[in-house]
Amino acid sequence: MNLMLTDNVIGAENQQERLKTTGWVVGFIDGEGCFSVSLHKNPTTKLGWQIMPEFVATQGEKSLASLKKLQSFFGCGRIFVNHRYDNHRENLYRFCVRSFRELDERIIPFFRENELQTAKSRDFDIFAQIIGLMKEKEHLTEKGIKKIIALATKMNTGKRKQQF
Amino acid sequence: MNLMLTDNVIGAENQQERLKTTGWVVGFIDGEGCFSVSLHKNPTTKLGWQIMPEFVATQGEKSLASLKKLQSFFGCGRIFVNHRYDNHRENLYRFCVRSFRELDERIIPFFRENELQTAKSRDFDIFAQIIGLMKEKEHLTEKGIKKIIALATKMNTGKRKQQF
Repeated sequence: MNLMLTDNVIGAENQQERLKTTGWVVGFIDGEGCFSVSLHKNPTTKLGWQIMPEFVATQGEKSLASLKKLQSFFGCGRIFVNHRYDNHRENLYRFCVRSFRELDERIIPFFRENELQTAKSRDFDIFAQIIGLMKEKEHLTEKGIKKIIALATKMNTGKRKQQF
Repeated sequence: MNLMLTDNVIGAENQQERLKTTGWVVGFIDGEGCFSVSLHKNPTTKLGWQIMPEFVATQGEKSLASLKKLQSFFGCGRIFVNHRYDNHRENLYRFCVRSFRELDERIIPFFRENELQTAKSRDFDIFAQIIGLMKEKEHLTEKGIKKIIALATKMNTGKRKQQF
């Protein structure tokens, strides 16, 4: 009986931590995250263009642990050193999710359930729409690509390598 | 009995929301918040200098709701329009807590209990130390002011108007 009670207490504590971590992820992405869709010339694709949706958070080296926390929370994504420097004192690191499947199955459902509180919420909505269109293979048609580009240009934070 | 059950369910839901909001505040401040200590010339003070600790988060107009959420969560602080523009498209807003009492009684205890996950955690520790010294009135002595300045110069995010 005592053991069961202890298990329940631990279960409740884990549940509380999980809720706080969920909130932390939303707040951190509200502050530092970015949903972007970039367009790359790629002659090997049918239409000559490749659409690359990406979910990113950037931090200095001293805060690398926070990116590792994101990576472990979502159970996906990679962390890269970014060779641009913001203050010449420390390297920048980027946590990126680029895999279409991981964006579709992990990132989008999470932010659908746990709404962003800043204007990034609108960027996320557009991002999710684009992922939806790509899931329907619309990016393989010229009409679909144009639709995606029209949506992407509405994103504030989208850093498009090439614009139409 | 049904009513009691319903009350319990509502209570549990509120508790869950509260935990998620707590996490959100920590994550958002990890991303966008700033603990700073500035030093102002003020001939009306005993030593000619005034030390101003401040807790700040800045957002564009479109994300003003997120600053209001912070203000309502902490039950203190003010929101100012900042007449600098980052992208010439929207005003910037700053949520600021400058009241010594509110910093001491609300902001510091909250972040002591809910630890920041980025390098801002170190800035917060220094900030809390400075508030502690001011509480002991050490900023009213020359030795104390020097101690505070030495601490403040260790803060990355401190935007000091005047440095020693």
